[in-house]
Amino acid sequence: MNTITTVAFDADDTLWRNEEIFTHAQQRFFDLLTPYHDEDYIKSHLEKVQIDNISHFGYGIKGFTLSMIETAIGLTEGRINGYEIHQIIQLAKEMLKAPVEILDGVHDALASLKGKVQLMIITKGDLLDQEGKVARSKLAKYFDFIEVVSDKNPKTYSDLLDRYQIQKTEFLMIGNSLKSDILPVLDIGSNAIHVPYHSTWVHEQVDSKTLQNYDILEAKGMSRAMDLLLETYKFKGN
Amino acid sequence: MNTITTVAFDADDTLWRNEEIFTHAQQRFFDLLTPYHDEDYIKSHLEKVQIDNISHFGYGIKGFTLSMIETAIGLTEGRINGYEIHQIIQLAKEMLKAPVEILDGVHDALASLKGKVQLMIITKGDLLDQEGKVARSKLAKYFDFIEVVSDKNPKTYSDLLDRYQIQKTEFLMIGNSLKSDILPVLDIGSNAIHVPYHSTWVHEQVDSKTLQNYDILEAKGMSRAMDLLLETYKFKGN
Repeated sequence: MNTITTVAFDADDTLWRNEEIFTHAQQRFFDLLTPYHDEDYIKSHLEKVQIDNISHFGYGIKGFTLSMIETAIGLTEGRINGYEIHQIIQLAKEMLKAPVEILDGVHDALASLKGKVQLMIITKGDLLDQEGKVARSKLAKYFDFIEVVSDKNPKTYSDLLDRYQIQKTEFLMIGNSLKSDILPVLDIGSNAIHVPYHSTWVHEQVDSKTLQNYDILEAKGMSRAMDLLLETYKFKGN
Repeated sequence: MNTITTVAFDADDTLWRNEEIFTHAQQRFFDLLTPYHDEDYIKSHLEKVQIDNISHFGYGIKGFTLSMIETAIGLTEGRINGYEIHQIIQLAKEMLKAPVEILDGVHDALASLKGKVQLMIITKGDLLDQEGKVARSKLAKYFDFIEVVSDKNPKTYSDLLDRYQIQKTEFLMIGNSLKSDILPVLDIGSNAIHVPYHSTWVHEQVDSKTLQNYDILEAKGMSRAMDLLLETYKFKGN
């Protein structure tokens, strides 16, 4: 039974709803473009532009918005007009101000862990946007450290653990993305609990062959994740 | 004579050229819009949109690009077309890939400090973009820590010093922006050396009345900043 001294949480779709904000904005984007093309075509084109642009723009709303604008121009062969593009920029500003809706069981989970272990948020995306959501969530009081990273790979995690002088075996990550929150953490010999969200962005999906190499703890919801944590690990002092 | 254990550097326009990348992109943006308006008018409108959008988009190229697009739509009353807006998105991608040109004296300064003090970069802007520039600059080897922050105010600095357990009197910041790199650092009782750049973005300018309250060490160029550092402070062990 490993002893855990630090529990880190992913933020978007782990602590609070996020995917719906993108889905809703995306739907309004489709509505804007359906006079030009059908929805499935727009959707697959947007996904392609988004993934091509990650190396330029990273994750987050600003990059997503630039990808929507680029898609709109591409799909209309430049016929889209300024007013329509302005609506896309307005979508971005609305997304950036969207209320933060905490997921079930999160408050109880954090309250039960506070004081027993060091608590962190490790999230990727735009710095200002993620900091704003942490502030609006009112969850900051639970956390010792909040880290916004540009990507979540094994090196990201092992650099963070070095910086905070946390032993790899004593670190546990909880998150909804196998690709970002679970596999890279298991890769470095740390611990993880997967709390799936009802939908996963195509870019975050992992093929089943890769998954065969991993032994993954999975919990349906945060409250069940806490049960699993207590069953599987111990904390210093108990 | 204060003893310094940590020297932190701003990045853009302190370690490497940056303002020119924005100025160059801005000039191409003006060229795109001069069929509609004269340059001074476009410039003042863009500055206004940019400053209004900082709370939404923060600092950095993606936010700047969204502000250019918004300005273009506003100033042409929506007449700007998709191809013209696409050129603005292309500008963003070029800016994000621009070569990093290290400023005079920086390599020598870092080499002379390495091993004597802890070295940090503290920069604001988009996470991915700033990390990319650090990597392309090949300066990462000199630094113990690299921090990208969303804003540089007294709280940002005092939180960072707490996190790294650095005494305020033992910390010194070197940067080109009085507003971001110097005044907030002096406000918390730490030390700073101002290395002005030949141009300062209007949003980073400070009025002369505010400046009267501060005693500011200023150096023309990084090599002179090193002289001033050695004249004014001592390091542990010498």
